Amino acid sequence: MVLSGPRPSQALSARMFAELAKETADSPGITRASFGVGEAFAHSLAAAVAQELGLSVTTDIAGNQYMIWPGRDRDAPRVFIGSHMDSVRHGGNYDGAAGVVAGLAAVADLQAEGFTPAQDIVVMAIRAEELVWFPTPYCGSRMAFGLLDPSEYDAVKRSDTGRSLAEHMREEGCDPDALKAGARPLDPATIRHFIEVHIEQGVTLDMKGIPVGVVNGIRGNLRYRHARITGKYAHAGALAREYRHDAVLAGAEFVQVLEHKWDALTAQGDDFVATVGEFWTDPDMHGMTKVPGSVNFTMDLRSLSNDVLMRVDAYLRDMAREIGERRRVVIDIGDYTNAPPAVIDPALVTSFERAARRLAIPTLTLPSGAGHDCATFSWQGVSAGMVFIRNQNGSHNPDEAMEMPDFDKAVQVLSEALRDIG
Amino acid sequence: MVLSGPRPSQALSARMFAELAKETADSPGITRASFGVGEAFAHSLAAAVAQELGLSVTTDIAGNQYMIWPGRDRDAPRVFIGSHMDSVRHGGNYDGAAGVVAGLAAVADLQAEGFTPAQDIVVMAIRAEELVWFPTPYCGSRMAFGLLDPSEYDAVKRSDTGRSLAEHMREEGCDPDALKAGARPLDPATIRHFIEVHIEQGVTLDMKGIPVGVVNGIRGNLRYRHARITGKYAHAGALAREYRHDAVLAGAEFVQVLEHKWDALTAQGDDFVATVGEFWTDPDMHGMTKVPGSVNFTMDLRSLSNDVLMRVDAYLRDMAREIGERRRVVIDIGDYTNAPPAVIDPALVTSFERAARRLAIPTLTLPSGAGHDCATFSWQGVSAGMVFIRNQNGSHNPDEAMEMPDFDKAVQVLSEALRDIG
Repeated sequence: MVLSGPRPSQALSARMFAELAKETADSPGITRASFGVGEAFAHSLAAAVAQELGLSVTTDIAGNQYMIWPGRDRDAPRVFIGSHMDSVRHGGNYDGAAGVVAGLAAVADLQAEGFTPAQDIVVMAIRAEELVWFPTPYCGSRMAFGLLDPSEYDAVKRSDTGRSLAEHMREEGCDPDALKAGARPLDPATIRHFIEVHIEQGVTLDMKGIPVGVVNGIRGNLRYRHARITGKYAHAGALAREYRHDAVLAGAEFVQVLEHKWDALTAQGDDFVATVGEFWTDPDMHGMTKVPGSVNFTMDLRSLSNDVLMRVDAYLRDMAREIGERRRVVIDIGDYTNAPPAVIDPALVTSFERAARRLAIPTLTLPSGAGHDCATFSWQGVSAGMVFIRNQNGSHNPDEAMEMPDFDKAVQVLSEALRDIG
Repeated sequence: MVLSGPRPSQALSARMFAELAKETADSPGITRASFGVGEAFAHSLAAAVAQELGLSVTTDIAGNQYMIWPGRDRDAPRVFIGSHMDSVRHGGNYDGAAGVVAGLAAVADLQAEGFTPAQDIVVMAIRAEELVWFPTPYCGSRMAFGLLDPSEYDAVKRSDTGRSLAEHMREEGCDPDALKAGARPLDPATIRHFIEVHIEQGVTLDMKGIPVGVVNGIRGNLRYRHARITGKYAHAGALAREYRHDAVLAGAEFVQVLEHKWDALTAQGDDFVATVGEFWTDPDMHGMTKVPGSVNFTMDLRSLSNDVLMRVDAYLRDMAREIGERRRVVIDIGDYTNAPPAVIDPALVTSFERAARRLAIPTLTLPSGAGHDCATFSWQGVSAGMVFIRNQNGSHNPDEAMEMPDFDKAVQVLSEALRDIG
């Protein structure tokens, strides 16, 4: 049964976003540091709203908060709806928080129509997702599964304070020592689905004029932080072409080769994205009238298929050798770090698509290029799904945007899918 | 008549290079700053040797020194042999000085065989050629022709002292005020030829195993100091390819387009060399996981033909527009500075080639990619010629090299050409 007229979720969401914006304002935009005051406020606001809805609220020793709506079978694996509540510095109000608000909003609507879930529905407020504060990925969700290396609690420092993760956690009443000793607050076997609602971090939905996205996979990545081309500096007016070891000309060809590979993969239907974010001659050595003797560059390669990433790595190493030999330079792309893609449960994709169709809400099914806590659950073998909300200005900036009617459509899709799940 | 056995030039040259190396040593290498003590020592050494050879020595108000061997017709336009005597900091002993030593050496040999020139032969020690000290090109030779802008004498500062050209000149007994007022110490109409012997600044002769080069032109250049590509920074994981404004991918294509143009020009026989010495994403803005939003780069384009340079400029502006539009970025190559090529007198090329052939000395006829004082004389309409000496390690560094037998061959070619000139 779908109620007509205003739904309770609308007032609830408007109030939560307004409170968040007001209490964590840090002009321009908002700031909610991981294990900082802004994040703590967001967690307490979510707890207060959950209690108004009659949910029980618990917190694990990593600081993650669980807001539990009991189902008919309290022992059955539970359906989680969650996201993080921290933000980058001077970020927007929605990246992360919208997922928690959406969970509470869906509960409010489902309660109002008299729905009782077959199993518990748990809205989870996750800690410390934004890598800019503690440089270890998916810190909060990984701690929930006991996945952080014990050494990280003291070694990883918050970028603004220089103090360790463990110190900040203790300040927030958490127990890093138990986690170091092997505690695992959350058991994947107890989770039926993990669903994350999140603003799209790019502008694909906005460009295509579609309010809601259904995520069909989270791209994995290969990252090369220290790629380098070594040639030889020389007098640009004196050294003939045939004796040059020009690092920039070699680098330009290498980047073009990478881009042509991207074209070829796209043409054959393989998912792939490449970014050469840094590419620089050495400011202490280069000059307008010098043949450039070195270039440093980075590569960030992403795909829904780790096999595609590994094939590209092999191809790039071959091409680095070939171009380097032909051009008398050494192209060393260096080591990579590899985050494998996260599988999205096709059943959840179908469920969201079907729900949206029933509600006549247009959706686009698309991969997530950025990582999300959802990936942690997927890697633990949990059936995971994601819903994107249209965002006008990209994320991680104060101009990040989301229209409330779009958010409302995502909440409706989520609620309808939850009805289906039962 | 060519003497057999040791020629007087050999002892003279060995002595001069040894004295220069000893008195201007600045480990590693030597330093002879423009209007500094090392340069002054080199000028006084040249004057002393010239006087031993019976030459009269005069100095103009810009500090350039003229060592005059009287010819049969004292009023006829004179043959000049000259180069500069300053060096870069921690440079080599030969860049510049070898040309003055070669002039005195040739005079010594020609005197020994009883030759008397038809007109005066003038060995000229030029001031302040190395741009690293006073950043105005060909400072000494341009002052000889009154070509410096009057404002430059006070505005141009020496890079190490921060003091003006005028101050340093006064310290060396020169008269910058007369030059500012329009004095023109040297009249191009009084010069029949200007011949500069110089070590090659590159390694083409060394790579090809040829001791002496005959220069057939001095390349002009087009320089772009502030070329820039403006795209848009974005989250590498979030923004789809079709919405990106990627400055590095655009820059890589642009550099490749420039290189392909180089290939095409070379294939059709046009002289051309291109260097992209700087190419950098902004260290304050770039990142491995950001689509790069800007690139700064430089271009140094050289050719014996200014028409080729101007055609390349037009082509690059067209391509910047085309690539920029296609890739949704702005490629602005900015303004250029243009130093036109300097014409080398073909008669002198023929004269050096013929002289070398007669002496069975292998030569390579090649363009000079770097600029030399010789260009100033050419631009004044003087018949100008250049002879290169093989150099093993490039110039402007302490490892710059020259073998004395190679220098000796260049002196023989010069002497034989002077016999021809009469």
